[in-house]
Amino acid sequence: MSRGKFITLEGGEGVGKSTNLQFITQWLTDRNIPFIQTREPGGTPLAEQLRELLLAKREEIVNPTAELLMVFAARAQHLAQVIVPALERGDWVVCDRFTDATYAYQGGGRELNRAFIEQLEKDVQGELRPDKVLLLDLDPQIGLQRAAHTGAADRFESEHLAFFHRVRAAYRERAEAAPSRYSIVDASQTLPEVQQQLAQELQRLL
Amino acid sequence: MSRGKFITLEGGEGVGKSTNLQFITQWLTDRNIPFIQTREPGGTPLAEQLRELLLAKREEIVNPTAELLMVFAARAQHLAQVIVPALERGDWVVCDRFTDATYAYQGGGRELNRAFIEQLEKDVQGELRPDKVLLLDLDPQIGLQRAAHTGAADRFESEHLAFFHRVRAAYRERAEAAPSRYSIVDASQTLPEVQQQLAQELQRLL
Ligand SMILES: Nc1ncnc2c1ncn2[C@@H]1O[C@H](COP(=O)(O)OP(=O)(O)OP(=O)(O)O)[C@@H](O)[C@H]1O
Ligand SMILES: Nc1ncnc2c1ncn2[C@@H]1O[C@H](COP(=O)(O)OP(=O)(O)OP(=O)(O)O)[C@@H](O)[C@H]1O
Ligand SMILES: [Mg+2]
Ligand SMILES: [Mg+2]
Repeated sequence: MSRGKFITLEGGEGVGKSTNLQFITQWLTDRNIPFIQTREPGGTPLAEQLRELLLAKREEIVNPTAELLMVFAARAQHLAQVIVPALERGDWVVCDRFTDATYAYQGGGRELNRAFIEQLEKDVQGELRPDKVLLLDLDPQIGLQRAAHTGAADRFESEHLAFFHRVRAAYRERAEAAPSRYSIVDASQTLPEVQQQLAQELQRLL
Repeated sequence: MSRGKFITLEGGEGVGKSTNLQFITQWLTDRNIPFIQTREPGGTPLAEQLRELLLAKREEIVNPTAELLMVFAARAQHLAQVIVPALERGDWVVCDRFTDATYAYQGGGRELNRAFIEQLEKDVQGELRPDKVLLLDLDPQIGLQRAAHTGAADRFESEHLAFFHRVRAAYRERAEAAPSRYSIVDASQTLPEVQQQLAQELQRLL
């Protein structure tokens, strides 16, 4: 039995990651491809508790290195408990955000040293990388407007616009540097247009 | 104004860290030395929440790397918010556990790679190390008996005896490798005997 494919959905606030995750899982269901759907930070009880600590707005200033280590702690747990076992039993894994979000938010947004992130990526993931990163690319101003309808802003959503411009630039930079593993999808298109492109990318993975 | 001294209290379960921390802070108070008293994991609201996640007993297996990264996340926050500002304003810092506990529990106990811990220590602390580590050394069987009176066992206290023998050995190894920064105190002595030795060590730091 072959290893499952590991697909991640990336992009800033409100670009349509959660919406299109539903489309992807329906596409896999229609083809009888076994899969799990998960998200980061999160995906196990402990990792979801870390997510809560990460997103909570708080009085104290959160140290960027502390934030980065919490993200990778949650990821180590998620990989060991959920992602690796799923891929090994042949399931596809569809994940709402993964390590590219760390490069984008903690690297781009918080301006943490990229070499430090790379080192943790290697420590935590070994050689494991997504087979395909679907990057939904959108002007952050539009994304934040879309996301604004979905409840109170968390600690990240409360950042300034300049932060989200750095997030977008960091995502694009990574995608442009490795075009075979990344697909940049123009998320300003209509949802049917976005999903047509996503379906093409999925088809190529078969 | 000179930088404060950074003193940590280390040792396995029930060796007398918390008891002797009170003795040390009284000693400092008697000499009008400004200080703060704190602990790890913990010391800020976020770091204390990470402590809760670390100590909670849970159904899922906690990945050792996830545990290690949570410990250093809490430490990064504690250093930035509490320890470094205190030392810079000239306060002494007396801390119940610090990075030696990571080498002992995650390195010795969980048998994680020491080089990985060293790398994170450098990433999170830069060159900052305690001025003096007071290691309370005790047969773990006696320590666990002492600690047993203080409530339900947490996730670490629920480990097997072999785990605590590895913890003790790792602590001793570090102390023996750097005798000028460490003082090993025989914690099987009576409390007055222990405290006489602690007072001597403190006197030397003045
Ligand atoms: N291509 C699109 N055109 C217009 N609206 C869209 C499009 N894609 C998603 N939306 C809408 O934008 C809003 C945010 O979408 P969604 O929650 O999927 O984004 P997200 O990337 O998961 O956001 P978050 O970062 O907050 O998790 C939803 O109301 C969704 O219906
Ligand atoms: N030298 C000693 N001789 C006898 N009993 C002691 C001695 N030192 C401490 N104790 C007792 O041992 C118990 C555990 O001590 P304490 O809570 O200070 O240990 P600790 O190292 O902080 O433990 P923990 O690892 O659980 O935090 C307490 O009841 C304390 O009074
Ligand atoms: Mg979403
Ligand atoms: Mg104690």
